[in-house]
Amino acid sequence: MRTQVAIIGAGPAGLLLSHLLHLQGIESIVLESRSREDIEATIRAGVLEQGSMDILTEAGVGERMKKEGALHHGFDLQFDGRRHRIDLTGLTGKAITVYPQHEVIKDLVAARVAAGGQLLFQVTDVVPGGVDGANPYVTFVHNGEAARIDADFVIGCDGFHGVSRPAMPAAGREDCQRIYPFGWFGILVESAPSSDELIYAQHERGFALVSTRTPTVQRLYFQCDPSDKVENWSDDRIWAELHARLEHNDGWKVKEGRIFQKGIIGMRSFVSTPMQSGRLFLAGDSAHIVPPTGAKGMNLAISDVRLLSRGLEQFYRQNRQDLLQSYTADALKRIWRAEYFSWWMTRLMHTFADATPFERQMQRAELDNIVASRQLATALAENYVGAF
Amino acid sequence: MRTQVAIIGAGPAGLLLSHLLHLQGIESIVLESRSREDIEATIRAGVLEQGSMDILTEAGVGERMKKEGALHHGFDLQFDGRRHRIDLTGLTGKAITVYPQHEVIKDLVAARVAAGGQLLFQVTDVVPGGVDGANPYVTFVHNGEAARIDADFVIGCDGFHGVSRPAMPAAGREDCQRIYPFGWFGILVESAPSSDELIYAQHERGFALVSTRTPTVQRLYFQCDPSDKVENWSDDRIWAELHARLEHNDGWKVKEGRIFQKGIIGMRSFVSTPMQSGRLFLAGDSAHIVPPTGAKGMNLAISDVRLLSRGLEQFYRQNRQDLLQSYTADALKRIWRAEYFSWWMTRLMHTFADATPFERQMQRAELDNIVASRQLATALAENYVGAF
Repeated sequence: MRTQVAIIGAGPAGLLLSHLLHLQGIESIVLESRSREDIEATIRAGVLEQGSMDILTEAGVGERMKKEGALHHGFDLQFDGRRHRIDLTGLTGKAITVYPQHEVIKDLVAARVAAGGQLLFQVTDVVPGGVDGANPYVTFVHNGEAARIDADFVIGCDGFHGVSRPAMPAAGREDCQRIYPFGWFGILVESAPSSDELIYAQHERGFALVSTRTPTVQRLYFQCDPSDKVENWSDDRIWAELHARLEHNDGWKVKEGRIFQKGIIGMRSFVSTPMQSGRLFLAGDSAHIVPPTGAKGMNLAISDVRLLSRGLEQFYRQNRQDLLQSYTADALKRIWRAEYFSWWMTRLMHTFADATPFERQMQRAELDNIVASRQLATALAENYVGAF
Repeated sequence: MRTQVAIIGAGPAGLLLSHLLHLQGIESIVLESRSREDIEATIRAGVLEQGSMDILTEAGVGERMKKEGALHHGFDLQFDGRRHRIDLTGLTGKAITVYPQHEVIKDLVAARVAAGGQLLFQVTDVVPGGVDGANPYVTFVHNGEAARIDADFVIGCDGFHGVSRPAMPAAGREDCQRIYPFGWFGILVESAPSSDELIYAQHERGFALVSTRTPTVQRLYFQCDPSDKVENWSDDRIWAELHARLEHNDGWKVKEGRIFQKGIIGMRSFVSTPMQSGRLFLAGDSAHIVPPTGAKGMNLAISDVRLLSRGLEQFYRQNRQDLLQSYTADALKRIWRAEYFSWWMTRLMHTFADATPFERQMQRAELDNIVASRQLATALAENYVGAF
C-alpha cells in the first residue's frame, strides 16, 4: 500500500489528524490495534477547551458535540468544608465542554468513514521503518497477513504504551517524568448528577472529584493508593469514602446509584522530546502525559495534530519544511504550559502522605490565596479554559 | 520595678510596640541584651510595604524613612538570560520602600528616648515568669544586679533565638518548619548601585540578588551552601560568581568595588503557635521566620505589634480581652499569607540540587507563566507590596 501519511493509532489525535489532512486533500491511512466497536465503547472522560471545540467544529465534526456536550461555566473548589465557585466564564469570558473522548472518537470515525477514509482496525505487529530517509514505511499484520504501507511521513498517535516513541533513536532523547504516589479510583454510577458543575474537593483523606457524564450517569473519582485493587473496594466502602470526603454540614449529599464500572488509574506527568525524528512525528499521549486533574489530555492531542496538519499542508502545498522542523519547539510551548498547570492542580488538590506539617500549611495557604485573590482565580480559570 | 507591659527585645517589633503603647498612654519597659550602639550599627536589610510605612508614619517615626528610604516601583525578574520587569506600581498602584532595619531601629530608639521611654540595654539572664496568672514578671540582671519587672503583660519580641518562645508551655505548642538546603552569601560593597531597582535572578548556578542600600553602597547576595565558610570566598571568587549568575550578552555589568562585609545567612520558614500563653505574647521573629526572598520579615513584625497594641489598648481602655484572645488567630492570617509567598518566591528563584529534570522544567514553566500572564504578575506584585 502507498499513502502520503501513515498514522499509527485511532485515538482523537490520529483520527483528527487524518481528517484535517483529508480536508486539505492529503491522503492518509490510520492503523489501530483495537476494533472499531472497542474504541467506540470504552468509556473515557473528556473536557474540551473552547479552542479544541473550534478546531473540531471547523473540521466539520462538531455537530453532535454542540448538541450533546455539556457546557460548563464554572466549577467548585472545595476545601476545609467550604465550596468556592470558580466562575470560568465570569473570569475569562470562556467556558469548557464536558464531552467524553469516546464520543469524539465516534464522531471522527463516522466522518472518516463517510469521507471514504482508510481506517485499518485490529492490526498487530506494527513497526515503523525507514524514518531517517525520505521513504518511511510501516509494516504490520492485518487479517492474518503481513502488510506494508509506504508513505512520506509516519505519525505516531498510539499513546504512552505505543510502538512509535520506542522506535525513535535513543540518542538525544530526553524524557522528563513525575509519577505521583497516588491514583484515581473512578466509578460510573447510574443516577442523576450530584451537582450541575464539577466539584474538585481537597480533603485530608484525599482528593475527590464529582464529575458528570449524562443526565442519568455520574462519573466520580477519589484519590487512592495506585497499587490498590478494585476488588478491595465494595460499593459500601466506596460510598462511605465519597461521603466522608465530599459532604459537610450544608445538607448536600452525593447521589448514590448502581455502580456499573470501577477502575484505578495511575497518575503521571511525562514529556518526551524531541517529538520528531526524520520522517517520524509523535502527537498526543505518545509524546506526553498529564495527570487528569487539569483536564488537558485531549486538548493537547488536538493542538499537537493541529500543528502537524499545518506543517504537512505547508510541505505538500509549498514544498517547505520549516513548520515541520519547528514542530517540537512549537508544540512544547503549549505542552509545558499544560504540564505545569496539571502538575500544579495535582499538587494543590491531593493529599501527599509524606508532606510535612509546613507543606500542608503551604497547600492550605495556596488554596486560601486562590479564593481570596481575583488575580489567582483568574489565572486558574484562564489555564482551565485554555484562554491564553 | 513595675510597669504595665514588659517587652523583651529592642528590635523593630519591641521598640514599635513600646512606642505604639506610649501613644495610647500605656507604660512599658523594653529589655535588650545588646547595647544601643550595637543594635544601631548592625547593618540589616529591610523592605517596607506601604502598610508598614503607614503604621510607622502614624506613629510619628516616619520622617527620616520618607526622606532617606528609597521608593521602588518595580523590580526585575531575571531567568534564562532575560530580564522581565515586575511593574509593582503599574500592577497594584503601590510601591515598597527600601529602608534598612537598623535605620528603623535608630528612629524608634530616638523616639522612645525623646518620649522618656524606658529602654534597658545589655541586660542578661532574662526570664519571664508568672505568665499563667494576672501578675507576670520578668527577672534579669542589669549593671551586674539582679532585677525584676512586675507587669500586666510580658511580650516576647526577642527573635528566633530568644528566651520568650522557650518559656511557653510545651503542651499544645505546634511548630511548623522548613529549613532550606541553601543559604545566602551577602556582601556589602563600596560602589554606586549596579541597578536602580532590585534584580532577582534565577540561574542554574544558583539564585542571585542585586539589592541597593545607599548611592555609594551596594548589597549583593548569592545562593550558597549554608555550611560554607566566608573564608572560602575570596573577593575574586565572589565577583566571578556574581558575574556568571547575573550577566548576559546585553552589556550590563555588576559594578565592582571594595567588599567591606561578608556573611552567610541560613534560610528557614518557621511558624510557632499559639502566639499567646496566659499573659505572655510573642511577636515578630520570636514566633515566625520567613526566608528573605519575599522581603516580608520586618513587615510581619510590624503587623504583629499593630495587632497587639490594639488588643492591649482594648484591655486598658475597655477592660475587654477579646482582641488579645484572638491575637494568634488574627495574626496568623497575615503570617501564613506571607509564609506562603516567601516559600513560593524561594522555591521559584533558587536552584535545588536534588530537583528532578521534571521539577526543573516546572520551575521554568512557572517563571514563563508569570511573565506571560498579567494575572500572575499582578498576584506576585500584590503579595510583594502587601496589597490585599
